Amino acid sequence: MKPKVSVFIATSLDGYIARPNGDIDWLDAANATVPDGEDCGYDALIRTVDVLVMGRKSYEKVLSFGSWPYGGIPVTVMSRNPIAFPDSLPKTIQHSSEQPQKLYERLAREGVSHVYIDGGNTIQRFLAAGLVDELTITIIPVILGDGIPLFGPIASDLSLTCVGAKAYDFGFVQLRYTVPR
Amino acid sequence: MKPKVSVFIATSLDGYIARPNGDIDWLDAANATVPDGEDCGYDALIRTVDVLVMGRKSYEKVLSFGSWPYGGIPVTVMSRNPIAFPDSLPKTIQHSSEQPQKLYERLAREGVSHVYIDGGNTIQRFLAAGLVDELTITIIPVILGDGIPLFGPIASDLSLTCVGAKAYDFGFVQLRYTVPR
Repeated sequence: MKPKVSVFIATSLDGYIARPNGDIDWLDAANATVPDGEDCGYDALIRTVDVLVMGRKSYEKVLSFGSWPYGGIPVTVMSRNPIAFPDSLPKTIQHSSEQPQKLYERLAREGVSHVYIDGGNTIQRFLAAGLVDELTITIIPVILGDGIPLFGPIASDLSLTCVGAKAYDFGFVQLRYTVPR
Repeated sequence: MKPKVSVFIATSLDGYIARPNGDIDWLDAANATVPDGEDCGYDALIRTVDVLVMGRKSYEKVLSFGSWPYGGIPVTVMSRNPIAFPDSLPKTIQHSSEQPQKLYERLAREGVSHVYIDGGNTIQRFLAAGLVDELTITIIPVILGDGIPLFGPIASDLSLTCVGAKAYDFGFVQLRYTVPR
């Protein structure tokens, strides 16, 4: 069976996932306005995820938070070069230098059923390779003017099916799309 | 009284209002799937508009459609250089070489109460000048990968208030924001 590949990410209204230098202070500030216990569906997603795939930059960003937020969820970090993972990290974290298609095929052979893709560059590479099934984008009500964009170049138009749009009282809007494969 | 300034525009999910060369074939194709009589609120907006402001590029694009779609609604075309309007256009079309702030102040003095800003560059200039009160963005379910972006650089973060999010059966999502002034 083919694994399902999900993207679940927040952007500014102008489509940035971080400032030019990677800062997400604007997202932290927005999250501080969210009522306790509301996670906009993140926990429900993560409970169904078999493997979380991210790029080296996202990995280093997460490492900088001090505590590893993913528990024992298998995490694969994509990077051309090997990564020396600190001993403090769970043994479920792995490195892959494969291209998205190869990584996807290997995960499929390993019986993985749900892959969560995180990080701007990694999301762009999986989208460009036609490997994303579902996109959940939470739009934060702020315009940043510049930053690291969620989307990048693709070879041809990608038509989507909108399967949900939810406005939260605190101003976030969550859009859900599926991608025909 | 200060005029209200509205933006009402469609973008791809990746935030483009047109392809790199200005083409909106993807938008025309999407609009062809919209049921007859559904205009996503455009007519309700345009009936309250006193002046429509656009840039020279948008004006030339609209001219290329062959028939002028705005009837007798006063239209102001912003352009550094004078524009020779064809005699076939309504006499309510004007040229302005003013900067956004100056144009806004003049319209205020003239008693205008609602200004509709159209066209990517013009919207960016009014946003950057802090002159936009309301943004209605209709997101078309397609990723283009490249194009003319709705948003551009701004001097500092612009926090918005989300006042609506509507998902249409045909896959469009319309987001409405107000901008605190």
